Amino acid sequence: MNTLFLPELREMLAFGQEAELQEFCVALNAGRTAEFMEGLTDKEMWQVLQYASPDRRAEIFGYFDEERQLAMLVAEPAEETSLLIEEIPEDDRVDLIQELPVEIVDQILPLLPAVDRRNIERLRSYPEGTAGALMTTEVAKLAEKLTVREALDELSRQASDLETIYYLYVVDDNNLLRGIVSTRQLVSALKEPTRTLGEMMETDVVVALTGEDQESVAEKVERFNLLAIPVIDSGRQMLGIITHDDVIDVVREELTEDAQRIAAVAPLEDDFLRIQLGLLAYKRGIWLTILFFAALLTAFALRMYEAELEIYAWLVCFIPLIISSGGNSGSQSATLVITAMTGGEVVPADLPKVFVREVFVSLMLGSFLSLIGFLVALFLAPSAWDALVIPITLLSVIVCGCLCGVVLPMMFKRLGLDPALMSNPFVAGIVDILGIVIYINVARVMLS
Amino acid sequence: MNTLFLPELREMLAFGQEAELQEFCVALNAGRTAEFMEGLTDKEMWQVLQYASPDRRAEIFGYFDEERQLAMLVAEPAEETSLLIEEIPEDDRVDLIQELPVEIVDQILPLLPAVDRRNIERLRSYPEGTAGALMTTEVAKLAEKLTVREALDELSRQASDLETIYYLYVVDDNNLLRGIVSTRQLVSALKEPTRTLGEMMETDVVVALTGEDQESVAEKVERFNLLAIPVIDSGRQMLGIITHDDVIDVVREELTEDAQRIAAVAPLEDDFLRIQLGLLAYKRGIWLTILFFAALLTAFALRMYEAELEIYAWLVCFIPLIISSGGNSGSQSATLVITAMTGGEVVPADLPKVFVREVFVSLMLGSFLSLIGFLVALFLAPSAWDALVIPITLLSVIVCGCLCGVVLPMMFKRLGLDPALMSNPFVAGIVDILGIVIYINVARVMLS
Repeated sequence: MNTLFLPELREMLAFGQEAELQEFCVALNAGRTAEFMEGLTDKEMWQVLQYASPDRRAEIFGYFDEERQLAMLVAEPAEETSLLIEEIPEDDRVDLIQELPVEIVDQILPLLPAVDRRNIERLRSYPEGTAGALMTTEVAKLAEKLTVREALDELSRQASDLETIYYLYVVDDNNLLRGIVSTRQLVSALKEPTRTLGEMMETDVVVALTGEDQESVAEKVERFNLLAIPVIDSGRQMLGIITHDDVIDVVREELTEDAQRIAAVAPLEDDFLRIQLGLLAYKRGIWLTILFFAALLTAFALRMYEAELEIYAWLVCFIPLIISSGGNSGSQSATLVITAMTGGEVVPADLPKVFVREVFVSLMLGSFLSLIGFLVALFLAPSAWDALVIPITLLSVIVCGCLCGVVLPMMFKRLGLDPALMSNPFVAGIVDILGIVIYINVARVMLS
Repeated sequence: MNTLFLPELREMLAFGQEAELQEFCVALNAGRTAEFMEGLTDKEMWQVLQYASPDRRAEIFGYFDEERQLAMLVAEPAEETSLLIEEIPEDDRVDLIQELPVEIVDQILPLLPAVDRRNIERLRSYPEGTAGALMTTEVAKLAEKLTVREALDELSRQASDLETIYYLYVVDDNNLLRGIVSTRQLVSALKEPTRTLGEMMETDVVVALTGEDQESVAEKVERFNLLAIPVIDSGRQMLGIITHDDVIDVVREELTEDAQRIAAVAPLEDDFLRIQLGLLAYKRGIWLTILFFAALLTAFALRMYEAELEIYAWLVCFIPLIISSGGNSGSQSATLVITAMTGGEVVPADLPKVFVREVFVSLMLGSFLSLIGFLVALFLAPSAWDALVIPITLLSVIVCGCLCGVVLPMMFKRLGLDPALMSNPFVAGIVDILGIVIYINVARVMLS
């Protein structure tokens, strides 16, 4: 947090130094200005913001922590907050509205101009996680017959209201998307100012449908390196755009959820520090309980083998080692396969190749660790022959663990299930039980 | 894979239908064209590409899989590949050069124009993972005194050679970065064509230094929602830019590495299916071996408690359950904290708040699972009193596991170490040993 300016800011506020505060609000870029204000209280932040013009206010506000944005919108009077809400970009605005308590929203909405109110209602009607919920409608739509000169003039008129002017969407009289012209093309064509948009436009446009899943949208934006992607309805009506910065957020969100699922946590869908404790316990408890029941099976398995364990008590020492080796190997394999599938490097059809490679890798790892295990076992087992139980078991368990670790996620993906959620728990559980069974049976064979 | 066009394409190639192939190369957008070509062999792809103009060829080529791009550059004669290399955007070009075998590069480089050759040498000199290695030098640099009209004209002249024209970097005669003007500003200012760039520019520019870590660059681009970030040297010389699409790739790479580290795999830095098996085994083996040694400690711990275990043989049945409960809980906690730190939601200073919350959550989870464990233990233990050992141990182990799981990553981050790499293995190992020690000692107290 940058505290450099806080004393000055507080002084300026105390003495109502209007000129200085107005200067502060415009001197630096909006993001930096927000940084310098971070150390103020919510009340102080709001007061400073009042010295900025309405659209600059919204710009700076946009860089605050979402938690603080919401706190301010709740605390301050609706007459002031509605002025701010009007200026906030549509897609960010509807996200805030959806997080605010209903009573606050009911106070603010009536104070907004009808057009903004209708826009909010429209955008919030789209289900979360879809293209419709991510988009903004502040987009440059121009007619085909406009010339380069006319288009630039129109653009310069609209520019400050638009989310981005870098792609221009060419629409017909019915608002149907006909093609796309980049501002780069427009600028390059300045030497031929009478060319029309219709002549220049690319008709093969990469689009997203309003109901399309946000991860699918992100994949398109990444694949084609787009600055923005247009959102259309089934009739090819041009409804809005989603910009690259919102896509970066989707990518980050998607990968964080994957990491959480791999650790057997149902995705939090809220900040780790903000989520209600009861809800957090529930989301963690689901899989922890399932894993627990899987582990209970090991208790019953060991019960069945109690006879052997009483005879060869030294076998007990190695139980945690055996199952953790299997578990760690399987967990490594599962994680690598799941992240590879998420990144598009691997598809279920690759299973034969992945399997063969895993056989080799697991044999290499298993042999190495079995050797170490054998050396240790020589100290704890009655004889060298007896000690052989350990390396044989370790090798078998590690190979089984690795192979389960690659097969199960790919199988689940093939069946249309989420590989990340289903695999690590199953891999762990299956490998634990397999480990016990292999261990005791190898012991039975070798020690009797 | 889109196989729709393959038969036609192969026919066109067989009959040398020049006009049709030229039409195919320009009819759709470059990304889509590349998609339709995916099913061809490398040789066929190369042949089709020859029907496109040089810069269109590079555009389509840019959408192919990196593996295939490299295969083509190796297989085809240097006279043809050098023509392509000339047209490929600088930042992508230097990445390819660094992946090609040295002999191939030595054949291609001499055939390039001197300016391209110097540019490649310059860019490849930057260490991997830094801003310098990500940037391109194809950037719009204009002088302060240019008017809006002059700037647009200059831009239209350069536009097709530049990576992006959406930010214009204002430099002085010594190429020092003075400020930034967005094309949006330029277009909005068309009504005042005599304003100069110097009057309009924002002087407070968010920049990256050439040696700056790519994750730090990505964080800036995300925070300020930038389309591109300028890269300067310590003297503020304007060297190049990094665009948003490269940043999305960095974010994805960064989060995938995190997920791999959490599973105790040193990041692969190569595709899962392409990496050499020996190297893969080594990267997995490092942590697997460390974990193995940690687990060996459990073998010695159990050895010390062999006496108790012989008397109360039923305790053995629950060993896997105890340590896996501790391990799973700890792993959940560690993953949640690590992903929260990566996403910037949590910083080491938040430890007190995180710790208190974790105490509550672990008590909730531990109590629930202990209850289930108790019910099962009633079946397997000699008496209800004896069975109490299990729930008491489970509760202690789960709480300890969760608390270790949140404290260790945050501690490591505080010490400047990578939390993801250091924590899950340590959490697992520590909790396993703790689990055994707690278990036996609770048993000793309660059963004697």
